[in-house]
Amino acid sequence: MQTVGIIGLGLIGGSIGLALKYQNSKAGDHIYTVIGYDSDPRRREQAEQAQVVDQISEHLFAVVRQADLLVIATPALAVRQVLAEIASHARAETVITDTASTKAAVLRWAAELLPAGARFIGGHPMAGGTGSLEDARADLFYGATYCLVPTMRADAVSQADESALAALRDLIAALGARPLLIDATTHDRCVAAISHLPFLISTALVETMANSPEVEIMSRLASSGFRDTTRLAAGDPIMYQQIALTNREAIAFWLDTHIAELQTIRQMLQADSDAGAERLLALFTRARERRKRLLG
Amino acid sequence: MQTVGIIGLGLIGGSIGLALKYQNSKAGDHIYTVIGYDSDPRRREQAEQAQVVDQISEHLFAVVRQADLLVIATPALAVRQVLAEIASHARAETVITDTASTKAAVLRWAAELLPAGARFIGGHPMAGGTGSLEDARADLFYGATYCLVPTMRADAVSQADESALAALRDLIAALGARPLLIDATTHDRCVAAISHLPFLISTALVETMANSPEVEIMSRLASSGFRDTTRLAAGDPIMYQQIALTNREAIAFWLDTHIAELQTIRQMLQADSDAGAERLLALFTRARERRKRLLG
Repeated sequence: MQTVGIIGLGLIGGSIGLALKYQNSKAGDHIYTVIGYDSDPRRREQAEQAQVVDQISEHLFAVVRQADLLVIATPALAVRQVLAEIASHARAETVITDTASTKAAVLRWAAELLPAGARFIGGHPMAGGTGSLEDARADLFYGATYCLVPTMRADAVSQADESALAALRDLIAALGARPLLIDATTHDRCVAAISHLPFLISTALVETMANSPEVEIMSRLASSGFRDTTRLAAGDPIMYQQIALTNREAIAFWLDTHIAELQTIRQMLQADSDAGAERLLALFTRARERRKRLLG
Repeated sequence: MQTVGIIGLGLIGGSIGLALKYQNSKAGDHIYTVIGYDSDPRRREQAEQAQVVDQISEHLFAVVRQADLLVIATPALAVRQVLAEIASHARAETVITDTASTKAAVLRWAAELLPAGARFIGGHPMAGGTGSLEDARADLFYGATYCLVPTMRADAVSQADESALAALRDLIAALGARPLLIDATTHDRCVAAISHLPFLISTALVETMANSPEVEIMSRLASSGFRDTTRLAAGDPIMYQQIALTNREAIAFWLDTHIAELQTIRQMLQADSDAGAERLLALFTRARERRKRLLG
Protein backbone atom coordinates (compact mmCIF):
# COMPACT_ATOMS: atom_id res chain seq x y z
CA MET A 1 0.00 0.00 0.00
CA GLN A 2 1.16 3.47 -0.88
CA THR A 3 0.00 6.81 0.46
CA VAL A 4 -0.33 9.46 -2.24
CA GLY A 5 -0.75 13.07 -1.11
CA ILE A 6 -2.28 15.57 -3.52
CA ILE A 7 -1.79 19.28 -2.87
CA GLY A 8 -4.20 21.36 -4.94
CA LEU A 9 -7.58 19.88 -5.85
CA GLY A 10 -8.41 21.35 -9.24
CA LEU A 11 -8.95 19.50 -12.52
CA ILE A 12 -5.52 17.83 -12.42
CA GLY A 13 -5.34 16.99 -8.70
CA GLY A 14 -8.96 15.82 -8.67
CA SER A 15 -8.46 13.64 -11.75
CA ILE A 16 -5.33 12.01 -10.29
CA GLY A 17 -7.32 11.24 -7.14
CA LEU A 18 -10.19 9.71 -9.10
CA ALA A 19 -7.83 7.65 -11.26
CA LEU A 20 -6.09 6.15 -8.20
CA LYS A 21 -9.41 5.42 -6.50
CA TYR A 22 -10.52 3.70 -9.70
CA GLN A 23 -7.38 1.51 -9.57
CA ASN A 24 -8.30 0.55 -6.01
CA SER A 25 -11.82 -0.39 -6.98
CA LYS A 26 -10.61 -2.33 -10.02
CA ALA A 27 -8.15 -4.29 -7.86
CA GLY A 28 -10.72 -4.70 -5.07
CA ASP A 29 -7.90 -3.64 -2.78
CA HIS A 30 -6.47 -0.50 -1.22
CA ILE A 31 -3.33 -0.16 -3.38
CA TYR A 32 -3.37 3.59 -2.87
CA THR A 33 -4.49 5.68 0.07
CA VAL A 34 -5.16 9.08 -1.43
CA ILE A 35 -5.18 12.13 0.83
CA GLY A 36 -5.84 15.60 -0.49
CA TYR A 37 -5.33 19.18 0.58
CA ASP A 38 -6.33 22.52 -0.90
CA SER A 39 -5.67 25.94 0.62
CA ASP A 40 -9.23 26.98 -0.27
CA PRO A 41 -11.76 25.65 2.29
CA ARG A 42 -14.60 25.74 -0.27
CA ARG A 43 -12.54 23.66 -2.66
CA ARG A 44 -11.85 21.15 0.13
CA GLU A 45 -15.56 20.87 0.79
CA GLN A 46 -16.32 20.46 -2.91
CA ALA A 47 -13.61 17.77 -3.19
CA GLU A 48 -15.04 15.98 -0.18
CA GLN A 49 -18.51 15.96 -1.70
CA ALA A 50 -17.21 14.77 -5.08
CA GLN A 51 -15.12 12.11 -3.28
CA VAL A 52 -12.12 12.67 -5.52
CA VAL A 53 -9.77 11.42 -2.75
CA ASP A 54 -10.12 9.00 0.17
CA GLN A 55 -9.52 11.66 2.75
CA ILE A 56 -9.29 15.45 2.85
CA SER A 57 -7.01 17.12 5.37
CA GLU A 58 -7.32 20.70 6.62
CA HIS A 59 -3.60 20.71 7.27
CA LEU A 60 -0.96 20.76 4.58
CA PHE A 61 1.62 19.23 6.94
CA ALA A 62 -0.55 16.26 7.84
CA VAL A 63 -0.65 15.32 4.16
CA VAL A 64 3.06 15.95 3.66
CA ARG A 65 4.10 13.82 6.65
CA GLN A 66 1.99 10.81 5.63
CA ALA A 67 2.74 10.79 1.90
CA ASP A 68 5.07 8.29 0.26
CA LEU A 69 4.45 10.17 -2.97
CA LEU A 70 3.47 13.84 -2.92
CA VAL A 71 1.90 15.48 -5.99
CA ILE A 72 1.80 19.29 -6.00
CA ALA A 73 -1.01 20.06 -8.47
CA THR A 74 -1.24 23.84 -8.09
CA PRO A 75 -0.58 26.63 -10.61
CA ALA A 76 3.15 27.21 -11.29
CA LEU A 77 3.93 30.04 -8.83
CA ALA A 78 2.05 28.32 -6.02
CA VAL A 79 4.40 25.33 -6.43
CA ARG A 80 7.19 27.54 -5.13
CA GLN A 81 5.18 28.49 -2.07
CA VAL A 82 4.21 24.89 -1.33
CA LEU A 83 7.84 23.76 -1.70
CA ALA A 84 8.93 26.49 0.75
CA GLU A 85 6.25 25.47 3.27
CA ILE A 86 6.85 21.73 3.12
CA ALA A 87 10.67 21.83 2.94
CA SER A 88 11.25 21.03 6.60
CA HIS A 89 8.25 18.71 7.00
CA ALA A 90 8.57 16.10 4.25
CA ARG A 91 10.17 12.78 5.10
CA ALA A 92 13.52 12.20 3.37
CA GLU A 93 12.21 9.16 1.48
CA THR A 94 9.05 10.86 0.14
CA VAL A 95 9.08 11.29 -3.63
CA ILE A 96 7.83 14.75 -4.55
CA THR A 97 6.54 15.88 -7.93
CA ASP A 98 4.43 18.67 -9.43
CA THR A 99 2.17 19.05 -12.48
CA ALA A 100 2.90 22.61 -13.63
CA SER A 101 3.30 23.46 -17.30
CA THR A 102 6.81 25.00 -16.93
CA LYS A 103 9.61 22.94 -15.48
CA ALA A 104 12.93 24.87 -15.36
CA ALA A 105 11.60 27.34 -12.77
CA VAL A 106 10.12 24.51 -10.71
CA LEU A 107 13.40 22.54 -10.71
CA ARG A 108 15.28 25.69 -9.63
CA TRP A 109 12.87 26.24 -6.74
CA ALA A 110 13.13 22.61 -5.68
CA ALA A 111 16.94 22.78 -5.69
CA GLU A 112 16.85 26.05 -3.75
CA LEU A 113 14.13 25.25 -1.20
CA LEU A 114 14.17 21.51 -0.50
CA PRO A 115 16.87 19.91 1.67
CA ALA A 116 19.87 18.35 -0.11
CA GLY A 117 19.01 14.82 -1.14
CA ALA A 118 15.28 15.51 -1.43
CA ARG A 119 13.67 13.25 -4.04
CA PHE A 120 12.04 15.79 -6.35
CA ILE A 121 11.21 15.05 -10.00
CA GLY A 122 9.18 17.49 -12.08
CA GLY A 123 6.06 16.22 -13.82
CA HIS A 124 3.68 17.48 -16.50
CA PRO A 125 0.67 15.58 -17.81
CA MET A 126 -0.22 16.71 -21.37
CA ALA A 127 -3.96 16.76 -20.77
CA GLY A 128 -6.44 18.93 -18.97
CA GLY A 129 -6.80 22.38 -20.38
CA THR A 130 -9.65 24.60 -19.43
CA GLY A 131 -11.64 22.77 -16.75
CA SER A 132 -11.83 22.90 -12.97
CA LEU A 133 -12.60 20.41 -10.18
CA GLU A 134 -16.12 19.77 -11.49
CA ASP A 135 -14.59 18.49 -14.72
CA ALA A 136 -12.24 16.03 -12.96
CA ARG A 137 -12.50 12.46 -14.20
CA ALA A 138 -10.61 9.21 -13.72
CA ASP A 139 -9.72 8.86 -17.41
CA LEU A 140 -8.46 12.43 -17.98
CA PHE A 141 -4.89 11.24 -18.58
CA TYR A 142 -5.75 8.07 -20.44
CA GLY A 143 -3.43 7.76 -23.45
CA ALA A 144 -1.84 11.17 -22.78
CA THR A 145 1.89 11.83 -22.69
CA TYR A 146 3.11 12.52 -19.13
CA CYS A 147 6.48 14.29 -18.94
CA LEU A 148 8.95 13.26 -16.25
CA VAL A 149 11.54 15.98 -15.79
CA PRO A 150 14.35 15.07 -13.39
CA THR A 151 17.04 17.55 -14.53
CA MET A 152 17.59 20.90 -16.22
CA ARG A 153 19.66 19.59 -19.11
CA ALA A 154 19.52 16.55 -21.35
CA ASP A 155 23.12 15.49 -20.57
CA ALA A 156 22.27 15.24 -16.86
CA VAL A 157 19.18 13.01 -17.16
CA SER A 158 21.28 9.94 -16.34
CA GLN A 159 21.90 11.39 -12.87
CA ALA A 160 18.22 11.06 -11.97
CA ASP A 161 17.14 9.13 -8.89
CA GLU A 162 16.09 5.83 -10.52
CA SER A 163 13.88 4.60 -7.71
CA ALA A 164 12.04 7.95 -7.55
CA LEU A 165 11.50 7.74 -11.30
CA ALA A 166 10.19 4.20 -10.89
CA ALA A 167 7.65 5.38 -8.31
CA LEU A 168 6.43 8.04 -10.73
CA ARG A 169 6.30 5.58 -13.63
CA ASP A 170 3.99 3.43 -11.49
CA LEU A 171 1.76 6.43 -10.82
CA ILE A 172 1.67 7.31 -14.54
CA ALA A 173 0.79 3.71 -15.43
CA ALA A 174 -2.08 3.90 -12.91
CA LEU A 175 -3.35 7.01 -14.73
CA GLY A 176 -3.20 5.19 -18.09
CA ALA A 177 -0.72 7.79 -19.39
CA ARG A 178 2.56 7.30 -21.28
CA PRO A 179 5.73 8.59 -19.55
CA LEU A 180 8.22 10.73 -21.50
CA LEU A 181 11.60 11.38 -19.86
CA ILE A 182 12.73 14.85 -20.84
CA ASP A 183 14.96 17.64 -19.48
CA ALA A 184 13.45 20.92 -18.28
CA THR A 185 15.06 23.12 -20.94
CA THR A 186 13.81 21.04 -23.86
CA HIS A 187 10.43 20.59 -22.18
CA ASP A 188 9.89 24.31 -21.64
CA ARG A 189 10.93 25.19 -25.18
CA CYS A 190 8.67 22.56 -26.77
CA VAL A 191 5.68 23.18 -24.51
CA ALA A 192 5.96 26.91 -25.20
CA ALA A 193 5.45 26.06 -28.88
CA ILE A 194 2.61 23.57 -28.64
CA SER A 195 0.72 24.92 -25.66
CA HIS A 196 1.72 28.38 -24.40
CA LEU A 197 1.94 29.97 -27.86
CA PRO A 198 -1.45 28.57 -28.95
CA PHE A 199 -2.98 30.02 -25.78
CA LEU A 200 -1.53 33.48 -26.50
CA ILE A 201 -2.59 33.33 -30.16
CA SER A 202 -6.07 32.35 -29.11
CA THR A 203 -6.21 35.20 -26.59
CA ALA A 204 -4.85 37.71 -29.13
CA LEU A 205 -7.47 36.58 -31.65
CA VAL A 206 -10.30 37.24 -29.19
CA GLU A 207 -8.83 40.68 -28.46
CA THR A 208 -8.37 41.49 -32.16
CA MET A 209 -12.06 40.86 -32.74
CA ALA A 210 -13.43 42.28 -29.50
CA ASN A 211 -11.69 45.62 -30.08
CA SER A 212 -13.49 46.12 -33.40
CA PRO A 213 -16.52 48.45 -33.63
CA GLU A 214 -18.18 45.69 -35.69
CA VAL A 215 -17.92 43.10 -32.94
CA GLU A 216 -21.72 42.66 -32.80
CA ILE A 217 -21.94 41.59 -36.42
CA MET A 218 -18.86 39.39 -36.06
CA SER A 219 -20.45 37.71 -33.10
CA ARG A 220 -23.44 36.73 -35.28
CA LEU A 221 -21.10 35.41 -37.99
CA ALA A 222 -18.72 33.47 -35.72
CA SER A 223 -19.12 29.72 -35.96
CA SER A 224 -17.20 26.58 -35.02
CA GLY A 225 -13.95 27.75 -36.65
CA PHE A 226 -13.68 30.78 -34.40
CA ARG A 227 -14.88 28.77 -31.40
CA ASP A 228 -12.17 26.11 -31.81
CA THR A 229 -9.34 28.48 -32.66
CA THR A 230 -10.06 30.50 -29.49
CA ARG A 231 -10.95 27.63 -27.16
CA LEU A 232 -7.71 27.95 -25.19
CA ALA A 233 -8.54 31.59 -24.35
CA ALA A 234 -11.20 30.15 -22.02
CA GLY A 235 -8.43 28.72 -19.84
CA ASP A 236 -7.74 29.76 -16.24
CA PRO A 237 -6.15 33.26 -16.41
CA ILE A 238 -4.10 32.71 -13.24
CA MET A 239 -2.69 29.42 -14.48
CA TYR A 240 -1.67 31.01 -17.77
CA GLN A 241 -0.28 34.14 -16.13
CA GLN A 242 1.98 31.97 -14.02
CA ILE A 243 2.99 29.92 -17.06
CA ALA A 244 3.85 33.11 -18.93
CA LEU A 245 5.88 34.51 -16.03
CA THR A 246 7.87 31.31 -15.58
CA ASN A 247 8.60 30.64 -19.26
CA ARG A 248 9.15 34.14 -20.67
CA GLU A 249 12.12 33.52 -22.92
CA ALA A 250 10.85 30.43 -24.71
CA ILE A 251 7.44 32.04 -25.22
CA ALA A 252 8.97 35.26 -26.56
CA PHE A 253 11.06 33.21 -29.02
CA TRP A 254 7.99 31.40 -30.35
CA LEU A 255 5.94 34.61 -30.51
CA ASP A 256 8.66 36.13 -32.70
CA THR A 257 8.85 33.02 -34.90
CA HIS A 258 5.08 32.96 -35.29
CA ILE A 259 4.87 36.70 -36.10
CA ALA A 260 7.53 36.18 -38.79
CA GLU A 261 5.43 33.34 -40.22
CA LEU A 262 2.34 35.61 -40.32
CA GLN A 263 4.37 38.31 -42.06
CA THR A 264 5.50 35.82 -44.71
CA ILE A 265 1.86 34.95 -45.37
CA ARG A 266 1.00 38.63 -45.57
CA GLN A 267 3.68 39.15 -48.22
CA MET A 268 2.38 36.25 -50.31
CA LEU A 269 -1.09 37.77 -50.04
CA GLN A 270 0.06 41.20 -51.17
CA ALA A 271 2.04 39.84 -54.13
CA ASP A 272 -0.76 40.28 -56.64
CA SER A 273 0.65 37.71 -59.06
CA ASP A 274 0.29 34.08 -60.14
CA ALA A 275 3.47 33.28 -58.22
CA GLY A 276 1.98 34.69 -55.00
CA ALA A 277 -1.21 32.69 -55.59
CA GLU A 278 0.77 29.49 -56.14
CA ARG A 279 2.86 30.05 -53.03
CA LEU A 280 -0.30 30.46 -50.94
CA LEU A 281 -1.74 27.22 -52.29
CA ALA A 282 1.55 25.38 -51.69
CA LEU A 283 1.70 26.73 -48.13
CA PHE A 284 -1.91 25.78 -47.28
CA THR A 285 -1.43 22.32 -48.79
CA ARG A 286 1.82 21.73 -46.90
CA ALA A 287 0.42 22.97 -43.56
CA ARG A 288 -2.55 20.63 -43.90
CA GLU A 289 -0.25 17.64 -44.48
CA ARG A 290 2.14 18.67 -41.72
CA ARG A 291 -0.67 19.01 -39.20
CA LYS A 292 -1.89 15.52 -40.03
CA ARG A 293 1.60 14.13 -39.40
CA LEU A 294 2.10 16.18 -36.22
CA LEU A 295 -1.12 14.88 -34.69
CA GLY A 296 -0.30 11.31 -35.71
CA MET B 1 -43.15 22.89 -56.49
CA GLN B 2 -39.81 24.54 -57.01
CA THR B 3 -36.78 23.31 -58.92
CA VAL B 4 -33.51 24.00 -57.12
CA GLY B 5 -30.30 23.54 -59.10
CA ILE B 6 -27.06 23.01 -57.22
CA ILE B 7 -23.76 23.57 -59.04
CA GLY B 8 -20.86 22.04 -57.11
CA LEU B 9 -21.51 18.98 -54.95
CA GLY B 10 -19.10 19.31 -52.04
CA LEU B 11 -19.93 19.62 -48.35
CA ILE B 12 -22.10 22.72 -48.86
CA GLY B 13 -23.89 21.74 -52.07
CA GLY B 14 -24.43 18.19 -50.81
CA SER B 15 -25.80 19.39 -47.48
CA ILE B 16 -28.22 21.82 -49.15
CA GLY B 17 -29.46 18.93 -51.31
CA LEU B 18 -29.94 16.65 -48.31
CA ALA B 19 -31.73 19.39 -46.33
CA LEU B 20 -34.20 20.02 -49.16
CA LYS B 21 -34.82 16.29 -49.65
CA TYR B 22 -35.46 16.06 -45.91
CA GLN B 23 -38.08 18.83 -46.21
CA ASN B 24 -39.77 16.83 -48.96
CA SER B 25 -39.85 13.67 -46.88
CA LYS B 26 -41.13 15.60 -43.82
CA ALA B 27 -43.92 17.16 -45.89
CA GLY B 28 -44.65 13.85 -47.66
CA ASP B 29 -44.66 15.92 -50.83
CA HIS B 30 -42.29 17.07 -53.54
CA ILE B 31 -41.91 20.72 -52.48
CA TYR B 32 -38.46 20.83 -54.05
CA THR B 33 -37.05 19.05 -57.05
CA VAL B 34 -33.32 19.13 -56.50
CA ILE B 35 -31.00 18.69 -59.46
CA GLY B 36 -27.25 18.73 -59.10
CA TYR B 37 -24.19 19.17 -61.26
CA ASP B 38 -20.47 18.92 -60.61
CA SER B 39 -17.70 19.37 -63.17
CA ASP B 40 -15.90 16.34 -61.72
CA PRO B 41 -17.45 13.05 -63.02
CA ARG B 42 -16.24 11.10 -59.94
CA ARG B 43 -17.95 13.60 -57.68
CA ARG B 44 -21.15 13.25 -59.71
CA GLU B 45 -21.00 9.49 -59.24
CA GLN B 46 -20.32 9.85 -55.54
CA ALA B 47 -23.25 12.30 -55.19
CA GLU B 48 -25.50 9.89 -57.07
CA GLN B 49 -24.58 7.04 -54.74
CA ALA B 50 -25.05 9.18 -51.64
CA GLN B 51 -28.37 10.45 -53.06
CA VAL B 52 -27.75 14.00 -51.95
CA VAL B 53 -30.02 15.32 -54.74
CA ASP B 54 -33.02 13.94 -56.65
CA GLN B 55 -31.26 13.94 -59.96
CA ILE B 56 -27.70 14.43 -61.22
CA SER B 57 -27.12 15.99 -64.61
CA GLU B 58 -24.00 15.61 -66.73
CA HIS B 59 -24.75 18.95 -68.33
CA LEU B 60 -24.42 22.26 -66.55
CA PHE B 61 -26.88 23.93 -68.94
CA ALA B 62 -29.60 21.33 -68.33
CA VAL B 63 -29.54 22.26 -64.64
CA VAL B 64 -29.40 25.98 -65.34
CA ARG B 65 -32.35 25.92 -67.73
CA GLN B 66 -34.61 23.99 -65.37
CA ALA B 67 -33.79 25.79 -62.12
CA ASP B 68 -36.13 28.30 -60.48
CA LEU B 69 -33.40 28.82 -57.92
CA LEU B 70 -29.76 28.18 -58.77
CA VAL B 71 -27.17 27.72 -56.04
CA ILE B 72 -23.51 27.91 -57.08
CA ALA B 73 -21.71 26.02 -54.32
CA THR B 74 -18.17 26.00 -55.71
CA PRO B 75 -14.96 27.59 -54.37
CA ALA B 76 -14.82 31.37 -54.89
CA LEU B 77 -12.88 31.62 -58.17
CA ALA B 78 -14.93 28.86 -59.77
CA VAL B 79 -18.06 31.00 -59.13
CA ARG B 80 -16.72 33.43 -61.71
CA GLN B 81 -16.28 30.70 -64.28
CA VAL B 82 -19.74 29.28 -63.65
CA LEU B 83 -21.31 32.76 -63.95
CA ALA B 84 -19.51 33.28 -67.26
CA GLU B 85 -20.70 29.91 -68.57
CA ILE B 86 -24.34 30.23 -67.53
CA ALA B 87 -24.81 33.93 -68.38
CA SER B 88 -26.59 33.32 -71.68
CA HIS B 89 -28.44 30.18 -70.58
CA ALA B 90 -30.26 31.07 -67.36
CA ARG B 91 -33.91 32.07 -67.62
CA ALA B 92 -34.56 35.72 -66.71
CA GLU B 93 -36.75 34.80 -63.75
CA THR B 94 -34.27 32.34 -62.18
CA VAL B 95 -32.90 33.52 -58.84
CA ILE B 96 -29.15 32.87 -58.68
CA THR B 97 -27.01 32.74 -55.55
CA ASP B 98 -23.63 31.39 -54.44
CA THR B 99 -22.13 30.17 -51.16
CA ALA B 100 -18.56 31.48 -51.33
CA SER B 101 -16.86 33.01 -48.30
CA THR B 102 -16.06 36.35 -50.00
CA LYS B 103 -18.82 38.45 -51.48
CA ALA B 104 -17.54 41.72 -53.02
CA ALA B 105 -15.64 39.88 -55.77
CA VAL B 106 -18.64 37.65 -56.47
CA LEU B 107 -21.02 40.61 -56.74
CA ARG B 108 -18.61 42.32 -59.13
CA TRP B 109 -18.46 39.23 -61.34
CA ALA B 110 -22.24 38.87 -61.32
CA ALA B 111 -22.66 42.52 -62.36
CA GLU B 112 -20.04 42.12 -65.06
CA LEU B 113 -21.02 38.72 -66.46
CA LEU B 114 -24.78 38.25 -66.03
CA PRO B 115 -27.30 40.05 -68.28
CA ALA B 116 -28.79 43.30 -66.96
CA GLY B 117 -31.77 42.51 -64.76
CA ALA B 118 -30.44 39.10 -63.71
CA ARG B 119 -31.65 38.15 -60.25
CA PHE B 120 -28.39 37.49 -58.43
CA ILE B 121 -28.01 37.72 -54.65
CA GLY B 122 -24.82 36.59 -52.90
CA GLY B 123 -25.10 34.05 -50.09
CA HIS B 124 -22.83 32.68 -47.39
CA PRO B 125 -23.83 30.03 -44.84
CA MET B 126 -21.70 30.33 -41.67
CA ALA B 127 -21.21 26.60 -41.26
CA GLY B 128 -19.24 23.88 -42.90
CA GLY B 129 -15.53 24.24 -42.56
CA THR B 130 -13.20 21.39 -43.28
CA GLY B 131 -15.34 18.56 -44.69
CA SER B 132 -16.13 17.28 -48.17
CA LEU B 133 -19.10 15.53 -49.81
CA GLU B 134 -18.82 12.50 -47.49
CA ASP B 135 -19.45 14.84 -44.55
CA ALA B 136 -22.61 16.36 -46.07
CA ARG B 137 -25.65 16.19 -43.81
CA ALA B 138 -29.18 17.58 -43.81
CA ASP B 139 -28.70 19.50 -40.53
CA LEU B 140 -25.35 21.15 -41.37
CA PHE B 141 -26.89 24.62 -41.41
CA TYR B 142 -29.31 24.12 -38.56
CA GLY B 143 -29.20 27.19 -36.29
CA ALA B 144 -26.37 28.78 -38.33
CA THR B 145 -26.36 32.35 -39.58
CA TYR B 146 -26.81 32.51 -43.38
CA CYS B 147 -25.69 35.81 -44.95
CA LEU B 148 -27.76 37.29 -47.77
CA VAL B 149 -25.68 39.83 -49.69
CA PRO B 150 -27.62 41.73 -52.35
CA THR B 151 -25.37 44.81 -52.72
CA MET B 152 -21.83 46.11 -52.30
CA ARG B 153 -22.66 48.83 -49.79
CA ALA B 154 -24.97 49.12 -46.81
CA ASP B 155 -26.75 52.22 -48.18
CA ALA B 156 -27.82 50.30 -51.30
CA VAL B 157 -29.39 47.29 -49.56
CA SER B 158 -32.85 48.79 -49.97
CA GLN B 159 -32.45 48.47 -53.76
CA ALA B 160 -32.43 44.68 -53.50
CA ASP B 161 -34.88 42.57 -55.49
CA GLU B 162 -37.43 41.80 -52.74
CA SER B 163 -38.98 38.76 -54.40
CA ALA B 164 -35.54 37.24 -55.04
CA LEU B 165 -34.70 37.82 -51.38
CA ALA B 166 -37.97 36.17 -50.39
CA ALA B 167 -37.10 33.07 -52.44
CA LEU B 168 -33.74 32.83 -50.67
CA ARG B 169 -35.34 33.37 -47.26
CA ASP B 170 -37.56 30.38 -47.99
CA LEU B 171 -34.52 28.29 -48.90
CA ILE B 172 -32.72 29.39 -45.70
CA ALA B 173 -35.78 28.52 -43.61
CA ALA B 174 -35.79 25.06 -45.23
CA LEU B 175 -32.16 24.63 -44.12
CA GLY B 176 -33.07 25.63 -40.55
CA ALA B 177 -30.63 28.57 -40.76
CA ARG B 178 -31.13 32.21 -39.75
CA PRO B 179 -30.85 34.83 -42.52
CA LEU B 180 -28.71 37.95 -42.02
CA LEU B 181 -29.04 40.73 -44.60
CA ILE B 182 -25.65 42.37 -45.00
CA ASP B 183 -23.70 44.31 -47.64
CA ALA B 184 -20.64 42.77 -49.30
CA THR B 185 -18.12 45.25 -47.91
CA THR B 186 -19.14 44.75 -44.28
CA HIS B 187 -19.48 41.01 -44.83
CA ASP B 188 -15.98 40.63 -46.26
CA ARG B 189 -14.39 42.74 -43.51
CA CYS B 190 -16.13 40.83 -40.71
CA VAL B 191 -15.67 37.36 -42.18
CA ALA B 192 -11.98 38.13 -42.72
CA ALA B 193 -11.76 38.66 -38.93
CA ILE B 194 -13.75 35.67 -37.70
CA SER B 195 -12.95 33.10 -40.35
CA HIS B 196 -10.12 33.96 -42.77
CA LEU B 197 -7.75 35.30 -40.09
CA PRO B 198 -8.29 32.27 -37.81
CA PHE B 199 -7.48 29.99 -40.76
CA LEU B 200 -4.22 31.84 -41.47
CA ILE B 201 -3.27 31.88 -37.78
CA SER B 202 -3.95 28.18 -37.56
CA THR B 203 -1.84 27.54 -40.67
CA ALA B 204 0.99 29.76 -39.42
CA LEU B 205 0.97 27.90 -36.09
CA VAL B 206 1.41 24.54 -37.82
CA GLU B 207 4.27 25.99 -39.87
CA THR B 208 5.91 27.57 -36.82
CA MET B 209 6.04 24.18 -35.14
CA ALA B 210 6.76 22.03 -38.19
CA ASN B 211 9.83 24.10 -39.08
CA SER B 212 11.43 23.39 -35.70
CA PRO B 213 14.16 20.74 -35.40
CA GLU B 214 12.33 19.54 -32.28
CA VAL B 215 9.10 18.80 -34.11
CA GLU B 216 9.25 15.08 -33.16
CA ILE B 217 9.19 15.86 -29.43
CA MET B 218 6.52 18.52 -29.93
CA SER B 219 4.41 16.00 -31.75
CA ARG B 220 4.50 13.72 -28.68
CA LEU B 221 3.57 16.64 -26.41
CA ALA B 222 0.78 18.09 -28.54
CA SER B 223 -2.68 17.50 -27.12
CA SER B 224 -6.22 18.82 -27.57
CA GLY B 225 -5.17 22.48 -27.25
CA PHE B 226 -2.90 22.32 -30.27
CA ARG B 227 -5.40 20.16 -32.16
CA ASP B 228 -8.24 22.66 -31.70
CA THR B 229 -6.19 25.79 -32.33
CA THR B 230 -4.98 24.33 -35.65
CA ARG B 231 -8.18 22.60 -36.75
CA LEU B 232 -8.88 25.14 -39.50
CA ALA B 233 -5.49 24.38 -41.10
CA ALA B 234 -7.05 21.06 -42.14
CA GLY B 235 -9.42 22.97 -44.45
CA ASP B 236 -9.44 22.66 -48.24
CA PRO B 237 -6.31 24.49 -49.53
CA ILE B 238 -7.96 25.49 -52.81
CA MET B 239 -11.01 26.94 -51.07
CA TYR B 240 -8.78 28.99 -48.76
CA GLN B 241 -6.44 30.08 -51.54
CA GLN B 242 -9.42 31.46 -53.45
CA ILE B 243 -10.73 33.15 -50.32
CA ALA B 244 -7.34 34.76 -49.73
CA LEU B 245 -7.07 35.96 -53.34
CA THR B 246 -10.55 37.48 -53.34
CA ASN B 247 -10.35 39.19 -49.94
CA ARG B 248 -6.74 40.39 -49.80
CA GLU B 249 -7.22 43.83 -48.31
CA ALA B 250 -9.50 42.90 -45.44
CA ILE B 251 -7.31 39.93 -44.54
CA ALA B 252 -4.13 42.02 -44.64
CA PHE B 253 -5.78 44.57 -42.32
CA TRP B 254 -6.68 41.89 -39.78
CA LEU B 255 -3.28 40.22 -40.03
CA ASP B 256 -1.68 43.57 -39.14
CA THR B 257 -4.11 44.14 -36.26
CA HIS B 258 -3.48 40.65 -34.92
CA ILE B 259 0.31 40.97 -35.20
CA ALA B 260 0.11 44.25 -33.25
CA GLU B 261 -1.90 42.44 -30.57
CA LEU B 262 0.74 39.70 -30.34
CA GLN B 263 3.45 42.34 -30.04
CA THR B 264 1.58 44.00 -27.16
CA ILE B 265 1.49 40.66 -25.36
CA ARG B 266 5.18 40.17 -26.04
CA GLN B 267 5.94 43.53 -24.43
CA MET B 268 3.91 42.68 -21.32
CA LEU B 269 5.82 39.41 -21.12
CA GLN B 270 9.22 41.09 -21.37
CA ALA B 271 8.37 43.75 -18.78
CA ASP B 272 9.87 41.85 -15.87
CA SER B 273 7.82 43.69 -13.25
CA ASP B 274 4.71 43.38 -11.10
CA ALA B 275 2.97 45.81 -13.45
CA GLY B 276 3.70 43.54 -16.43
CA ALA B 277 2.44 40.51 -14.51
CA GLU B 278 -0.77 42.32 -13.58
CA ARG B 279 -1.35 43.44 -17.13
CA LEU B 280 -1.02 39.86 -18.37
CA LEU B 281 -3.54 38.63 -15.81
CA ALA B 282 -5.95 41.45 -16.68
CA LEU B 283 -5.60 40.67 -20.39
CA PHE B 284 -6.17 36.92 -19.98
CA THR B 285 -9.16 37.54 -17.70
CA ARG B 286 -10.70 40.04 -20.11
CA ALA B 287 -10.17 37.85 -23.18
CA ARG B 288 -11.86 34.93 -21.44
CA GLU B 289 -14.90 37.07 -20.64
CA ARG B 290 -15.00 38.64 -24.08
CA ARG B 291 -14.88 35.24 -25.78
CA LYS B 292 -17.82 34.07 -23.69
CA ARG B 293 -19.85 37.11 -24.78
CA LEU B 294 -18.79 36.82 -28.42
CA LEU B 295 -19.92 33.22 -28.64
CA GLY B 296 -23.18 34.05 -26.89
